[in-house]
Amino acid sequence: MGLYVALVHYPTVNKQGATVTTSVTNFDIHDIARACTTFGVDRYFIVTPVELQRLFVERIMVHWIEGSGADYNPTRGESLRGAEVATDLAAVGDAIEREAGRRPLWVATSARADGRLMKSGEVRSRLAGGETFCLVFGTGHGLHPEVMELADHVLEPIFGPTAYNHLSVRSAVSIYLDRIMGR
Amino acid sequence: MGLYVALVHYPTVNKQGATVTTSVTNFDIHDIARACTTFGVDRYFIVTPVELQRLFVERIMVHWIEGSGADYNPTRGESLRGAEVATDLAAVGDAIEREAGRRPLWVATSARADGRLMKSGEVRSRLAGGETFCLVFGTGHGLHPEVMELADHVLEPIFGPTAYNHLSVRSAVSIYLDRIMGR
Repeated sequence: MGLYVALVHYPTVNKQGATVTTSVTNFDIHDIARACTTFGVDRYFIVTPVELQRLFVERIMVHWIEGSGADYNPTRGESLRGAEVATDLAAVGDAIEREAGRRPLWVATSARADGRLMKSGEVRSRLAGGETFCLVFGTGHGLHPEVMELADHVLEPIFGPTAYNHLSVRSAVSIYLDRIMGR
Repeated sequence: MGLYVALVHYPTVNKQGATVTTSVTNFDIHDIARACTTFGVDRYFIVTPVELQRLFVERIMVHWIEGSGADYNPTRGESLRGAEVATDLAAVGDAIEREAGRRPLWVATSARADGRLMKSGEVRSRLAGGETFCLVFGTGHGLHPEVMELADHVLEPIFGPTAYNHLSVRSAVSIYLDRIMGR
């Protein structure tokens, strides 16, 4: 397919704009893995430089893929088979290159993005044309400006009919994937 | 607007199809309230017959709307101002009638629905035409068959390009609201 998702826990910003490392949360692991599997994402990378957090995620994955969780709820394990931990976006790029044979176009997301923005429909059509994309999502109050700056593209923010657009990252991933890959 | 959302914790079914009451989870409160506020939903009802659970939700709402959470993260309180607890769907209908002047058309949702299904686009156009809808979501393994049976309509399930469609209820609500109300 050529579509990858990365959930970044560093570098992100907090409410005051300071650079922070956020913690991995259980709901981010499962909700996003389930959405990625539903919408045919090739691989979902959970990105954190904190080794203990990566071990935490891997322990959860093993529980649902081959531990007692596999009997209790096999659809959880099925979705987590597409998930993987990574130290940083460079490691994500390496993993995608090994799998897809090339590095992806990096598409950052932000609720506050403006300027030249890419529409979900363009990702949809260019994916169909054979290009490879990695959508990058920030936790906390969003991706650090350096990630926004270095990305190849920025996706247009999600808006309803109101001025409020404080969606959870879980909601944002789900909506973008539906816009890009939904039937 | 005329659009309401109800998240039902009873009657729902578990994996084996038995009738169960599920617990309210903190992520369901916040993620869905934030999506509802983004997409201009008039009111988000958290439906449970368990009084202690309703008190739990109200305590969380007070914390973010007027407690110390209001300073810490005002956007949380803003989204929760549109939320309300209810004992059952009859109480939801009463509340909507008080607010909108009429009872809504009930639109149930299910990942496994088939038969005559309503498309999100039809809800979008009929809302624009002035009709009032309440989208009903089940927790656990979904709404009890009696709710599906008694609803006026059932929304078409969400599919990507795969056969897997085990989305979290948080993802499903977000995607349907984007389809119905997204710009």
